[in-house]
Amino acid sequence: MMPPPVCTASHVPFDDRGLAYGDGLFETVLLRAGEPVLWQYHMDRLALGCERLGMPLPSQAFLDATWQGGVSTALEVLKLILTRGSGGRGYALPEQVTPRLLSRRAPFQPSVERWRQGVTVRLCELRLSRQPRLAGIKHLNRLENVLARQEWSDTTIAEGVLADSEGVVVEATSMNVFWRQAGKVFTPLLEQCGVAGTLRAALIEQGAVTPASLPLAHLADVEQLWVANSVQGVWPVTTLLSSDGSLLKRWPTCSADSFQHLAHQLLGFA
Amino acid sequence: MMPPPVCTASHVPFDDRGLAYGDGLFETVLLRAGEPVLWQYHMDRLALGCERLGMPLPSQAFLDATWQGGVSTALEVLKLILTRGSGGRGYALPEQVTPRLLSRRAPFQPSVERWRQGVTVRLCELRLSRQPRLAGIKHLNRLENVLARQEWSDTTIAEGVLADSEGVVVEATSMNVFWRQAGKVFTPLLEQCGVAGTLRAALIEQGAVTPASLPLAHLADVEQLWVANSVQGVWPVTTLLSSDGSLLKRWPTCSADSFQHLAHQLLGFA
Repeated sequence: MMPPPVCTASHVPFDDRGLAYGDGLFETVLLRAGEPVLWQYHMDRLALGCERLGMPLPSQAFLDATWQGGVSTALEVLKLILTRGSGGRGYALPEQVTPRLLSRRAPFQPSVERWRQGVTVRLCELRLSRQPRLAGIKHLNRLENVLARQEWSDTTIAEGVLADSEGVVVEATSMNVFWRQAGKVFTPLLEQCGVAGTLRAALIEQGAVTPASLPLAHLADVEQLWVANSVQGVWPVTTLLSSDGSLLKRWPTCSADSFQHLAHQLLGFA
Repeated sequence: MMPPPVCTASHVPFDDRGLAYGDGLFETVLLRAGEPVLWQYHMDRLALGCERLGMPLPSQAFLDATWQGGVSTALEVLKLILTRGSGGRGYALPEQVTPRLLSRRAPFQPSVERWRQGVTVRLCELRLSRQPRLAGIKHLNRLENVLARQEWSDTTIAEGVLADSEGVVVEATSMNVFWRQAGKVFTPLLEQCGVAGTLRAALIEQGAVTPASLPLAHLADVEQLWVANSVQGVWPVTTLLSSDGSLLKRWPTCSADSFQHLAHQLLGFA
């Protein structure tokens, strides 16, 4: 008998490869009245991740079942974890891979205050390593993000900006970075590291954002800076601190932020 | 009431940080008649890993309990997984961290044939990224090793040799690399990436091995090459293949391999 193509679970056992090696992927999805926002972008990234890791992609029915049915409130966050399942001898794959799909949904409220008043961000000391084989996908090897997020505990700092080992701006610890220069909006290329967010993908597809390279040394020179993702929306950055807490730059808050407005239309926030 | 310092478990829940982010460490330990071999080296590496990740180290009693008691056979492998436990908002740590400790032991037989006849290894195409913050420790972010191990399925190839993004030899997918040059034995530095094995640590402490840098381009020029770890012992490399399968070098098998003999004394194999 063929094993099922996917095993859905609420726990994972000792030999799950997601636990053992971070051998898997995840997605964090905004649900509005029970319906996923930017769902196709999440599915596209998951498919790309499976392709990169050499993992079978679960059928759409399995993936849709993570949000279909159940009681839905206004806004929720759905988190999916897809691991390569159990088995194999060490790093070698088992003969038959049966991925394990886990999901959880929880009520969510975005921070309207951060949308309107903007946020303070700091530069992280940690430099992301460059691994093009893993760049862009949302895999389970996230120790760099965990270490970076440990650099501060001041709750007035909303995010940390990460650069790679060559000093190129990549992302924030859990958000993508966007900046305006000469009237155009850009976002890092993410060819060497970083997670390519679904809101970022939708904005690029709309032609509203262009991927580009930004050296850390030029970050304070941009006309406007934002951090954003598909769950929290867009936070304008009003204050940029160095990793030692010193002020690098202040930007004025903009009462009519056209970039934020467009992004929030995509998310149903505007 | 204070939460317990460590939670022992056989499964991990959805919100375990080991599963979510690979936020944790592991050890793979040889047990001989129920007693761990090189146990202090494993404990030292685990302690270093906890320090690097900013995680509390469980008490020695909790760690010893993973192998104490139970029915023991001649040789077993004990695997420990220590995660940072549940919780936190995204990458941010929870206020109170309660690590989760999992363990499993299984009967084991090393390959005497590989000790005696040596093995074929191949170069991996994947290049390890450089991240000094994570170098040396045995953390749960092992997607690079998983990807590298997927490069071949030919069972006559015992291991794959990995170099980093600068072309410096680092390790094999699940073993350390050693080589002899001008009568001395060396092993990669592992300051930028790779796992610092416990057998390697014991051999360095004995003065039998010196850490050094070896460019991939010079690998075929060494007098003798070995791959080794604290569970499998030492495999002399007799054949080195490129990633496309072409022959790069053959070394003769040595009937009286003093390096292997010393390492196997440390493991109780000689």
